[in-house]
Amino acid sequence: MGKKDASEPSVRDALRVRRGRTRSFALAPDDTPVGPGSKAKAAKNLDEVADELAGLQEALYAEGVTGGERRVLLVLQGMDTSGKGGTIRHVCGLVNPQGLSIASFKKPTVAERRHPFLWRIRRELPAAGQIGVFDRSHYEDVLVPRVENLVPEAIWRGRYDEINEFEAELTDAGTTIVKCFLHISKDEQAERIAARLNDPTKQWKHNPGDLNSRAKWDDYQAAYAEMLSKCSTRTAPWYVIPANRKWYRNWAVANLLLETLRDMKPQLPGPDYDVEEELARLQNGGSSGGKS
Amino acid sequence: MGKKDASEPSVRDALRVRRGRTRSFALAPDDTPVGPGSKAKAAKNLDEVADELAGLQEALYAEGVTGGERRVLLVLQGMDTSGKGGTIRHVCGLVNPQGLSIASFKKPTVAERRHPFLWRIRRELPAAGQIGVFDRSHYEDVLVPRVENLVPEAIWRGRYDEINEFEAELTDAGTTIVKCFLHISKDEQAERIAARLNDPTKQWKHNPGDLNSRAKWDDYQAAYAEMLSKCSTRTAPWYVIPANRKWYRNWAVANLLLETLRDMKPQLPGPDYDVEEELARLQNGGSSGGKS
Repeated sequence: MGKKDASEPSVRDALRVRRGRTRSFALAPDDTPVGPGSKAKAAKNLDEVADELAGLQEALYAEGVTGGERRVLLVLQGMDTSGKGGTIRHVCGLVNPQGLSIASFKKPTVAERRHPFLWRIRRELPAAGQIGVFDRSHYEDVLVPRVENLVPEAIWRGRYDEINEFEAELTDAGTTIVKCFLHISKDEQAERIAARLNDPTKQWKHNPGDLNSRAKWDDYQAAYAEMLSKCSTRTAPWYVIPANRKWYRNWAVANLLLETLRDMKPQLPGPDYDVEEELARLQNGGSSGGKS
Repeated sequence: MGKKDASEPSVRDALRVRRGRTRSFALAPDDTPVGPGSKAKAAKNLDEVADELAGLQEALYAEGVTGGERRVLLVLQGMDTSGKGGTIRHVCGLVNPQGLSIASFKKPTVAERRHPFLWRIRRELPAAGQIGVFDRSHYEDVLVPRVENLVPEAIWRGRYDEINEFEAELTDAGTTIVKCFLHISKDEQAERIAARLNDPTKQWKHNPGDLNSRAKWDDYQAAYAEMLSKCSTRTAPWYVIPANRKWYRNWAVANLLLETLRDMKPQLPGPDYDVEEELARLQNGGSSGGKS
């Protein structure tokens, strides 16, 4: 698929997690298994694909407003500072904001905790024709409660199946799910947190809780690895995005989205009215039900 | 205010509707009462202000995630093809999509009609720190029901006060409201509808109902004019955007938003934690509650 040199693997093939195959990451945060080898080339690529991406998004949107059922859900997960916000700004900023539906999932509120964990997720699912973007997601519920011992193991472990069933339901109903784990190293996180702390224009982004999570780095990595392994399904695969380099991260997510949309082949819908008749009505002053 | 030459009026002053002053439009769809006189200059201006706009939006967003209450609500109204969608793509596309909350109000559903007309509007109000964008709005409820005779005059006429009170409530609670009427001429609409009908990639945007509304052009213009007059308040003014020229429309809305945000003077919040202590915790491996 795609238009590239056949010797270049697809981004999806290069970054996809094979279900159950391993509990550690197949890719390191600095890897560049596919794609441009430099920041300049990545920027050039994004410039080149921006129009195609925007065009595909417009066609998907057009399908949605004319009765189509298809939509995309882009899930972004990763440790603090891994670049979820930056990805949204740089990648999702390439398409018409009207076609985006962005939801951020913070620590559940008291009201949210009184519902099953998928309740608040369902409320934020993208409408037909939209590209939904989840900044964190239902996957938080197999990460935080596990590492922080908030619920018994049987509970969070049971959520892998619940999530797979939930996502199968979504894909059956027309949603193409693209799940990206933004993979940074512990050293890179230290640099990014220090950069936030040392820059008065970035200090607001720091949360002391981020350092508490960092202290449990290995536990979180284990939780992420098992999540990737257990929930990378054929219809809703996980992708590991090497994210130490921001330009590579943006390039990879943009091209995953591009390949996904190319495969969906959204089409600008034809008219569901008689064009000649409408042109005649327009000439006659737009009167109701006019004929030529 | 602003940074411009003092002899140049603010965009807000030039385009603002004075409440109750007139029932016809003070500006024509081709007017350019302020701002650049050419498409090229308008494009240059948008390039120049994009960074400032994005920076102000980031500061507003940062305020919102750190406890601030302020937010912006941009309301877009206008006849079919007046460019509400194009404005969102070109103007709102200048800022981080994560800080936008875009809602489109179509013909009310059966479920929505069982509630007061402001019910569905309240559900889509922007959260603190967001720039909310309404593609059509509660103002539809003093336009369509009036022209199409769907409810008694006393009902739609009573909505002017209801809307003014509703908007006063929003502004009291931290919302800065910017209401833009995208003003096109009947001839320009004919050209745009014909362009849609004659271009297979745009035919999906046409709705035969648009021609029914066009047949009642004068009635709709009267309804818009009275809406502008009755609901342009000191705290939530209406602006008439001459919109026959797309480049002028985009320039005007972008600069209204810019002036509004400049006046709000959103500030990147300082840290609500001890920076030195956090840096020490980071060096010590991020352990919980660590001190230097």
